[in-house]
Amino acid sequence: MVLQLSIGARVRKSPFFDAARADGMAAASVYNHMYMPTSYGDPAAEYERVINGVAMWDVGVERQVALKGPDAVALARYLTPRNLDGLKIGQGKYVPICNYEGTVINDPVLLQITDDEVWLSIADSDISLWAGGIAGARGMDVRVYEPDVSPLAIQGPKATDVVADMFGGWIRELRYFGFAEAEIEGIPLVLARSGWSKQGGYELYLRDGQYGARLWQLVKQAGASYGIGPGAPNYIERVESGLISYGADTDDATTPYELGMDKFIDVDQEQDFVGKAALRALRDAGVKRRFMGLLIDGDPFPTTNEARWKLHQNGDYVGYASAAAYSPRVQSNIAVAMVSVAAIESGQPVDVACNWGDRTATIVPLPIA
Amino acid sequence: MVLQLSIGARVRKSPFFDAARADGMAAASVYNHMYMPTSYGDPAAEYERVINGVAMWDVGVERQVALKGPDAVALARYLTPRNLDGLKIGQGKYVPICNYEGTVINDPVLLQITDDEVWLSIADSDISLWAGGIAGARGMDVRVYEPDVSPLAIQGPKATDVVADMFGGWIRELRYFGFAEAEIEGIPLVLARSGWSKQGGYELYLRDGQYGARLWQLVKQAGASYGIGPGAPNYIERVESGLISYGADTDDATTPYELGMDKFIDVDQEQDFVGKAALRALRDAGVKRRFMGLLIDGDPFPTTNEARWKLHQNGDYVGYASAAAYSPRVQSNIAVAMVSVAAIESGQPVDVACNWGDRTATIVPLPIA
Repeated sequence: MVLQLSIGARVRKSPFFDAARADGMAAASVYNHMYMPTSYGDPAAEYERVINGVAMWDVGVERQVALKGPDAVALARYLTPRNLDGLKIGQGKYVPICNYEGTVINDPVLLQITDDEVWLSIADSDISLWAGGIAGARGMDVRVYEPDVSPLAIQGPKATDVVADMFGGWIRELRYFGFAEAEIEGIPLVLARSGWSKQGGYELYLRDGQYGARLWQLVKQAGASYGIGPGAPNYIERVESGLISYGADTDDATTPYELGMDKFIDVDQEQDFVGKAALRALRDAGVKRRFMGLLIDGDPFPTTNEARWKLHQNGDYVGYASAAAYSPRVQSNIAVAMVSVAAIESGQPVDVACNWGDRTATIVPLPIA
Repeated sequence: MVLQLSIGARVRKSPFFDAARADGMAAASVYNHMYMPTSYGDPAAEYERVINGVAMWDVGVERQVALKGPDAVALARYLTPRNLDGLKIGQGKYVPICNYEGTVINDPVLLQITDDEVWLSIADSDISLWAGGIAGARGMDVRVYEPDVSPLAIQGPKATDVVADMFGGWIRELRYFGFAEAEIEGIPLVLARSGWSKQGGYELYLRDGQYGARLWQLVKQAGASYGIGPGAPNYIERVESGLISYGADTDDATTPYELGMDKFIDVDQEQDFVGKAALRALRDAGVKRRFMGLLIDGDPFPTTNEARWKLHQNGDYVGYASAAAYSPRVQSNIAVAMVSVAAIESGQPVDVACNWGDRTATIVPLPIA
């Protein structure tokens, strides 16, 4: 049964919300206290665009937490276990954030904007409170706040052409996670080679919310000849690609090692950071479960999952699948899952308690496609 | 146009979710990363129940942030500007929480459960991150986490009879915000005289999520002869009563003084707490805007507001209305609003830019009804 999403003033609307709604937004959720479009009513077309064409996504929910002041970089370095030696303006970095117990509490992209200003482009948890509380308690000289910045993503193999038409060929030279200040019609932006898919693309970080509707129209016009259409971070594509969705894939004890983030965690650096001792112990102990892919047998799932599905092996609970869908590219039902190392190493299949009865699944590495 | 709410594993379901959905949940939002029912499809009946009868609400979204350990009370005292002298087990307190700048970031009810355990029953922001970051940075001996606790509210003038039938007459002796441990069929609960309405009632804090469906049925059965039915924190009643909705009524600069929380803020106590210096300065400076009620003229609003409405007086911007509805009790359109002191003191009406054209409103004290 369909549930209606209540619309009120408590949950925020992105600067693109009205334009996206006018263009057919059919379903949405809430992310960082803001409405997040999830579908425009034609899942097959939305998937096709990001895989073979180009899609435009209102991802204003990727809120920025700005650290600004003399201690901005020092605070950033204290917040993440990633070694930020060599951090530079214009090159973003994926920076997992853990609490003092070594549990993942967000996985933002960090953008150093100026010498004394850093943005964290966050997943769905209030990192402004985490960072602000720590900065205040430590008496650091830095202001933590949410600036008026709202990303619009252009994703898919034709995204580069669309963005080059809008901003010039220089955008082709940006490295992955590279970014630069830019503008169009005087609208101030940060333009980054990034986005929550593995199909390539860019994100336009709108720096003045009053121009949301105009920027939406400019992207729509520039993309028209490439067949651009609206979409949202794609449920199927993210499972195929094994992208982590904080909150869906994680629980209140998930460590970065379980998520395969090893290369982003440096417990041997001199820099002190939150959770250093705990993470060192976790590294030494080794993991008991890992974030993996599943190939699930049987008829194609008619919809995506509405909840986590439990996994069993020989009757024992061995983990959960957090996102599942039928993949046209893999031509199989697939899922991402947190699975016990014992179950993985057994080489045996697992039983999946899905909405349409029990299914059997093979554990596979990520990405799946 | 109706938006569908996407259901997936990223947003959590309360232990009552399936039962509430089976009983006709028609609309929902998201609050503290959990689905929050907002309507069962019959707003008039839902309003009538809380005003003249009894309603049961899945308010599992009122998540508890537990502070547990030798420094639990010390951390609680550091987190709130309220003077907690005389805090005792069994008596809850409304404790605004501010950041280091004196801005309100939540307004929980605090429940001291044992000598070394305190719960904060929070509004919609990640106070677990705020409190955990501060405790970690200060090296306090306290664990901050979210326990398996989910409130179910029973609200309305007949709520006391329903709860007395379930638990015994002793519940009539509880003071407002008083609470006690209780159980029914062995299901562990904290039973509190509280709830997000001014119509009286109780909240059953379920302490083991596996019994959500059973507790829902027990309340439904006990309330049947009193005409109990499902509902949600009521939009109209909260405006009539002037209850604060964090996030809707507040912005990134709202102070407790603007919200009329003066009696809960003690900047002269010896205890140090977050934002003490800032709040002292804010108190001395006085407020420039206040949380007020509005009586808005014209035809009854066909729906509630989907966004904040701007207020003007003689062409000048003077604030915003954050929640508006037609009140059957007041027999007028009403709203809660943040309004400039100058506009209030002028004694003149304000212009409201509402969805159905401009209206004129009189500023009135809260509560309205």
